[in-house]
Amino acid sequence: MIHLGVIGYGYWGPNIVRNFNSVDGAKVIAVCDKNKSTLQRVRKVYPYVDLSRSCHEIITAPDIDAVAVVTPVSTHFELAVEVLRNGKHLFIEKPFTATVAQAEQLIELAEKKNLKIMVDHTLLFTGAVRKIKEIIDEGVLGELYYYDSTRVNLGLFQHDVNVIWDLAPHDFSIMDYLINERPVAVSTCGKSHFNSLEDIAYVTVYFENSLIAHFNVNWLSPVKVRSTLIGGEKKMLFYNDMSADEKIKVYDKGIEVKNKQGVYDLLVSYRSGDMWSPRVRQKEALQVESEYFVDCVRNDRTPINDGHAGLRVVRILEACNESLKNNGRMVNL
Amino acid sequence: MIHLGVIGYGYWGPNIVRNFNSVDGAKVIAVCDKNKSTLQRVRKVYPYVDLSRSCHEIITAPDIDAVAVVTPVSTHFELAVEVLRNGKHLFIEKPFTATVAQAEQLIELAEKKNLKIMVDHTLLFTGAVRKIKEIIDEGVLGELYYYDSTRVNLGLFQHDVNVIWDLAPHDFSIMDYLINERPVAVSTCGKSHFNSLEDIAYVTVYFENSLIAHFNVNWLSPVKVRSTLIGGEKKMLFYNDMSADEKIKVYDKGIEVKNKQGVYDLLVSYRSGDMWSPRVRQKEALQVESEYFVDCVRNDRTPINDGHAGLRVVRILEACNESLKNNGRMVNL
Amino acid sequence: MIHLGVIGYGYWGPNIVRNFNSVDGAKVIAVCDKNKSTLQRVRKVYPYVDLSRSCHEIITAPDIDAVAVVTPVSTHFELAVEVLRNGKHLFIEKPFTATVAQAEQLIELAEKKNLKIMVDHTLLFTGAVRKIKEIIDEGVLGELYYYDSTRVNLGLFQHDVNVIWDLAPHDFSIMDYLINERPVAVSTCGKSHFNSLEDIAYVTVYFENSLIAHFNVNWLSPVKVRSTLIGGEKKMLFYNDMSADEKIKVYDKGIEVKNKQGVYDLLVSYRSGDMWSPRVRQKEALQVESEYFVDCVRNDRTPINDGHAGLRVVRILEACNESLKNNGRMVNL
Amino acid sequence: MIHLGVIGYGYWGPNIVRNFNSVDGAKVIAVCDKNKSTLQRVRKVYPYVDLSRSCHEIITAPDIDAVAVVTPVSTHFELAVEVLRNGKHLFIEKPFTATVAQAEQLIELAEKKNLKIMVDHTLLFTGAVRKIKEIIDEGVLGELYYYDSTRVNLGLFQHDVNVIWDLAPHDFSIMDYLINERPVAVSTCGKSHFNSLEDIAYVTVYFENSLIAHFNVNWLSPVKVRSTLIGGEKKMLFYNDMSADEKIKVYDKGIEVKNKQGVYDLLVSYRSGDMWSPRVRQKEALQVESEYFVDCVRNDRTPINDGHAGLRVVRILEACNESLKNNGRMVNL
Repeated sequence: MIHLGVIGYGYWGPNIVRNFNSVDGAKVIAVCDKNKSTLQRVRKVYPYVDLSRSCHEIITAPDIDAVAVVTPVSTHFELAVEVLRNGKHLFIEKPFTATVAQAEQLIELAEKKNLKIMVDHTLLFTGAVRKIKEIIDEGVLGELYYYDSTRVNLGLFQHDVNVIWDLAPHDFSIMDYLINERPVAVSTCGKSHFNSLEDIAYVTVYFENSLIAHFNVNWLSPVKVRSTLIGGEKKMLFYNDMSADEKIKVYDKGIEVKNKQGVYDLLVSYRSGDMWSPRVRQKEALQVESEYFVDCVRNDRTPINDGHAGLRVVRILEACNESLKNNGRMVNL
Repeated sequence: MIHLGVIGYGYWGPNIVRNFNSVDGAKVIAVCDKNKSTLQRVRKVYPYVDLSRSCHEIITAPDIDAVAVVTPVSTHFELAVEVLRNGKHLFIEKPFTATVAQAEQLIELAEKKNLKIMVDHTLLFTGAVRKIKEIIDEGVLGELYYYDSTRVNLGLFQHDVNVIWDLAPHDFSIMDYLINERPVAVSTCGKSHFNSLEDIAYVTVYFENSLIAHFNVNWLSPVKVRSTLIGGEKKMLFYNDMSADEKIKVYDKGIEVKNKQGVYDLLVSYRSGDMWSPRVRQKEALQVESEYFVDCVRNDRTPINDGHAGLRVVRILEACNESLKNNGRMVNL
Repeated sequence: MIHLGVIGYGYWGPNIVRNFNSVDGAKVIAVCDKNKSTLQRVRKVYPYVDLSRSCHEIITAPDIDAVAVVTPVSTHFELAVEVLRNGKHLFIEKPFTATVAQAEQLIELAEKKNLKIMVDHTLLFTGAVRKIKEIIDEGVLGELYYYDSTRVNLGLFQHDVNVIWDLAPHDFSIMDYLINERPVAVSTCGKSHFNSLEDIAYVTVYFENSLIAHFNVNWLSPVKVRSTLIGGEKKMLFYNDMSADEKIKVYDKGIEVKNKQGVYDLLVSYRSGDMWSPRVRQKEALQVESEYFVDCVRNDRTPINDGHAGLRVVRILEACNESLKNNGRMVNL
Repeated sequence: MIHLGVIGYGYWGPNIVRNFNSVDGAKVIAVCDKNKSTLQRVRKVYPYVDLSRSCHEIITAPDIDAVAVVTPVSTHFELAVEVLRNGKHLFIEKPFTATVAQAEQLIELAEKKNLKIMVDHTLLFTGAVRKIKEIIDEGVLGELYYYDSTRVNLGLFQHDVNVIWDLAPHDFSIMDYLINERPVAVSTCGKSHFNSLEDIAYVTVYFENSLIAHFNVNWLSPVKVRSTLIGGEKKMLFYNDMSADEKIKVYDKGIEVKNKQGVYDLLVSYRSGDMWSPRVRQKEALQVESEYFVDCVRNDRTPINDGHAGLRVVRILEACNESLKNNGRMVNL
């Protein structure tokens, strides 16, 4: 039986506790949070969970095997170092850390102590993203041309990070999972309207080949959009996470180029065929992920969303901020 | 009666001829096109139109008052100069010219000869754009925060210009019409997959104040999207040109910031109220525009889409190309 | 403090227990169910609830003030009679009873003993239905012409009632709540494909005036539809319960008839104006309803969804079955 | 070369003339209409068409091979009889005739004189209906359970027929084309709000087996709906004619019944798989139909939409009116 301690019971914490609690072979035995009224909400639903310990006590407790860090990113490094130093496995919210250097240190530490790090890239565990992975890996789309993501809605404003650090880790982690190519450079534009943190941003990511990726993130949109277009040589895919029944559509559409020689000689023909929407597994993503964490810990497996995956996302985030400061200038990764 | 000559009867030419022909007080009397089989299509529908003249003959004909230039942009300047020198009013496809310098020369020439230039920014004459103009001018949205446009679909590949010069003039001209602020800088990323011309591009436009604009244009999308989000201090507007009945939605949604001082003190509250979708006039935009052209010519009025408007669009286009060459580096306007 | 006993913990029971438990001033103290593994699910989430009593013991327990009957309709009458005879208030699933005669008996019994009956017409407590009620009562739609409802999806097949008794009580109760007119007759067509119970049915309800209502219910639809059109003299309303953000749309559309005299003299003009989508309260309907039940019991108020409301729905259901047997023949109410 | 005369140039006439005119081997040589200003519209677009003849002159003209009757249904029989007696092929608007008896007489007359009758069931010639026909004929859906159609919008009020005779012929003709089973009975409910003609109606059609069909037609709807659900044993199909790109969706969804014996023993399992949206040909339906008419005339082929098809539709329409008069009583066909 894996015993977990959870640090932080704010917006996402209740989901962490509920899901880890329901995993066979795991149990949340302690939760801490700065806010007393928050802890009373835990008591109501889980009268048997220990709320008396401080976060330091949770981290050092001998009866706890793994710690979930569900706090703002600015606190991640300090807490995570302590968790790992105390020989406990780490489940940590995205983004992994506030800097590339921090992420590298945590990875090194975990490897030295033979501990698992899992960064909570929840969306990798949705039925939709899994199905898209299958489709891409089977070569259905052919060589990829572009990856174009939009994640916009009203709020929630964060107080310590800009909209990119808040929303884009979802998309960077999905892209990292789906695409084998590694990104080489970033260009980012954005604007802040209320304080110094950007509430709107546009990120372009370049790859070595002709693949281009783009991310539109916005805290000030009246409509909620969660969609990604992935265009390939053979087919094109539309992923709409707001659709209840048809999250993925694969279009047998594209262009065929007869003559790639010159500009004026280019002969383009259009292909427009059927559309196919595969069925997607419905199970809650965080449930799948928490079972996977317990499995990785018990059977000493390396998670797909390990520290290295977390680091790759932080590397792009850091480059975005640098490009932002330079009005969109390209920053190499 | 205004007599028109039309140069070019390709993709858009038939619409030009049909609409100008139906304006009271105007008549298309001559059409020319390089392609003989194209001219036969004209003959079938308009047996009385003169197809015998060359484009030079049309431009110099004493019985012709105005010439519509409906050809690729690379030919615009040479034809337009001749039209104006021969004392004829000019109706010309978008984008106005291939360079800022050309546009400036044409404006000067027209002013000297007291002739009208109208650049075919058709979408300014849709019921939807007119209604949005009203809404913005009445202050319904309050101070503007962002303008975020997506115009993507499969094809049509152009042979002489990239996707920005093909699709974005629509959006640049709408933005120019709707927004009183003037843009000050541009940052553009993009990629070409088949030849040297970009088929996907992302354009960010900066203004003096905190307004930011973004344009996503793509020739390789399986789904056709024509939408613009306009976010303001008071309300937010969604313009979806693909919707048959609800092209414009005005959301009484937004955030209110209590304390703009420090990052951590920022108190944000969300407002989420009703949505309102105004009725939009249905009349064909090009019909409205061709009537307006005839009216401007007869009554010596300056069109909203005159040479200066065309120039402002070309200025952004030119800056986009320069930024593209420099991997997204900001280019001042 | 109102103490509740709950009979039945199948599909809907967990929602009943969760919501009543969270009402201030109420507590679920006992739950019973035929199925032992079902009870174990209760124990996991609510370790303190008494699971030892039989349904008879719950009904007769002196420490229980009210009983929620969450069982198939065929068992309703027998259980409800016992609940009321034992002096307890009754919260009961829809449809209220299997026959009009049973409903009338229960109403009489409750009135004699001064007890409350509340029939679980949950949808009356949604923000959307409340808002539509306001709109209609304010006269926004004018005189009503039609009420046209569609409630179709795949499953869930019921074993004891046809699709009308399963799905239409939702719509009949909403119509009963929204519309002041009383229905006078019913005509129903339907078909069964797997056993003797209809899985598809079409119900038309007539009123004294020219209002007509129609209900399309279907257990065999690949798409889930939950929509109602309400057409009035002044405006028309579309209620789409599957829409996340725009559940209600009010259209300023309609026809105006100039001359109602003769067929050929009829002058019809169309009105097509703005659309307006009011904001709708988001609170869970069953939460609102369970608070309302506790309030009605404590403050001796008559619920809008009392036994009489339940009876009116059962009266239509009974007439539907009679019309079905006679191939759509009109049955008076 | 087939020479056509066209009687009636109202709402639909311009489409008839335009399409027949563009068929190779056919030419519209004369058009008549009661309304003089209507004829001026013809003159503008087709200066060479003869507008001088009366409808009687067109019908009796020796240089005319076929006559298109594009007038209200009340005039069909008298005109059609004269067309056929004068030895001309007949293209006639839907519904074919005002009564079953009239349709039977016209069929007999045409057969005697070896002339073609084609009833303008235009929608049979859309890419979507053709694709659905293929899908059903290949057995993709399996045995059919239901056919559920909705055709509602605002207007256009007709002055001589109710909403069923105006809108439902489209759907009855599609059903007749798609489904091999023959309907055996009809039950219809409806209501009129402005004169004696029903503006809203609900039609149920029974078949010998367990297939059931339903048609919801309404002139008073704020939203335009053109959709049909077809449910089968193996798959289910959704046909949405208002969708630009995904008119047909085939769902691998359904239920499987293990035990059809008794009510309580019924074991139902649900199947929920992929969705597939086949590409649909885009060519204008009336263009396909007019080419087909010319082909049938020239090569002596029997159209799928011949007089018998027209008669089958009129037979249902006549039964609908009888059922309406009897408040939904079932009427055998």
